[in-house]
Amino acid sequence: MQNYKIIISYDGTEYQGWQRQPEKRTIQGLIENALEKITAKKIPVIGSGRTDAGVHAEGQVAHFKVNSRLENDEFLRALNGILPSDIRIRSLKKALPDFHARKSARSKIYQYRIFNSPDISPFFIRYVLQWTSSLDMAKMEESAKLFVRKADFTPFSSNRLLYPIRVVTQSEIRKKGKEIIYTVEANGFLRYMVRSIVGTIIEAGRGKLNPGQIEDFFKLNKRSHLCPTAPAKGLTLIRVKY
Amino acid sequence: MQNYKIIISYDGTEYQGWQRQPEKRTIQGLIENALEKITAKKIPVIGSGRTDAGVHAEGQVAHFKVNSRLENDEFLRALNGILPSDIRIRSLKKALPDFHARKSARSKIYQYRIFNSPDISPFFIRYVLQWTSSLDMAKMEESAKLFVRKADFTPFSSNRLLYPIRVVTQSEIRKKGKEIIYTVEANGFLRYMVRSIVGTIIEAGRGKLNPGQIEDFFKLNKRSHLCPTAPAKGLTLIRVKY
Repeated sequence: MQNYKIIISYDGTEYQGWQRQPEKRTIQGLIENALEKITAKKIPVIGSGRTDAGVHAEGQVAHFKVNSRLENDEFLRALNGILPSDIRIRSLKKALPDFHARKSARSKIYQYRIFNSPDISPFFIRYVLQWTSSLDMAKMEESAKLFVRKADFTPFSSNRLLYPIRVVTQSEIRKKGKEIIYTVEANGFLRYMVRSIVGTIIEAGRGKLNPGQIEDFFKLNKRSHLCPTAPAKGLTLIRVKY
Repeated sequence: MQNYKIIISYDGTEYQGWQRQPEKRTIQGLIENALEKITAKKIPVIGSGRTDAGVHAEGQVAHFKVNSRLENDEFLRALNGILPSDIRIRSLKKALPDFHARKSARSKIYQYRIFNSPDISPFFIRYVLQWTSSLDMAKMEESAKLFVRKADFTPFSSNRLLYPIRVVTQSEIRKKGKEIIYTVEANGFLRYMVRSIVGTIIEAGRGKLNPGQIEDFFKLNKRSHLCPTAPAKGLTLIRVKY
């Protein structure tokens, strides 16, 4: 069977996350339904990883295997014709037989957007965390940099894994007008990892912790109340690299 | 009583337009409800004009009269605290007693956004008309300019008014990446006027009419099937000038 690679953007606001679940509106579920309508077959669509309820994607990647007579552009239009407008297949290409959206991924890039102002346009509000009080950018920048490391990220996750070591190669925060944009790249992420890192950086920004304490969290290897999980709506999966 | 001027942004997707209607979710209705919760009085909120179901606003303006002990910023926060996140009061100021959001308005600026590509991000799709086939920009630019005039705009409206003369002072279209943005300013607009002008310009862009025919529509003073009403979702009220 032919292996296909698709790149998907979605506004996660109305969805219970990526992963198919019975009776729930999920992105994987809807793509599989669309695929079944077109091919009359039940075909699993394997994503690069889950995104949580409310999390968005610019460039989620998935693969699936099917034999179809459709040209790539016809196939893409057919899928987008069935999918709701807040899920868009951006690219559909034939892939080598061994391409696997999750296993072949080398790294992922996420962004988290904070809108630091009481005055916000309703056109942005679905995609950012609105934060009305002031935040210390210098402390947030200092904190963000401390996450660039190969380490056990359990203190910044909601669960314990047998192999919790991840390599974060980029972790930086910058201001763009009233927006504060955090960008992180790693070879993989634990559950809630980006949102916990962002929660920690915000705690630093509002003066509740010193950036130096982040080193302690890694050493103690357990979760602190100073590492809360930031809300899903500000988070977007930007890109998966292969 | 104190007169207040407010500037409002809204994502019109989920609303039956500006104007209060029984049993319907409208922007005016929700702002009046919020005001009633705060002041315990039924206070009419007068907008600069209606926007249709699905139309957005960056800078809708309204006024209302009430006596309140709240400071302006407290009043604004209280309203935004009650309103849903897709309606945001951007500014609240005391106005002179004779300020009237509709009658004092000198002109309004609308924008209509067309996304001219099959590949669209779901983060834009609520705010643009997606148009997948090609459009002739030169013909659209030529057409757009022809609407700058003082004239009876009945051929570009859904109903006949006793005084249908309007003065359009700006009407231009430009390309920005994959987006085509139409901007129009006039001292007032008839019902569906912007969307009919946009529908006409699109017909020119897809080769269904020659820009020269627009002069004929004005002369004949009646609606043509070549002046269809473009969908609401691409339209945004940008600013009201006083």
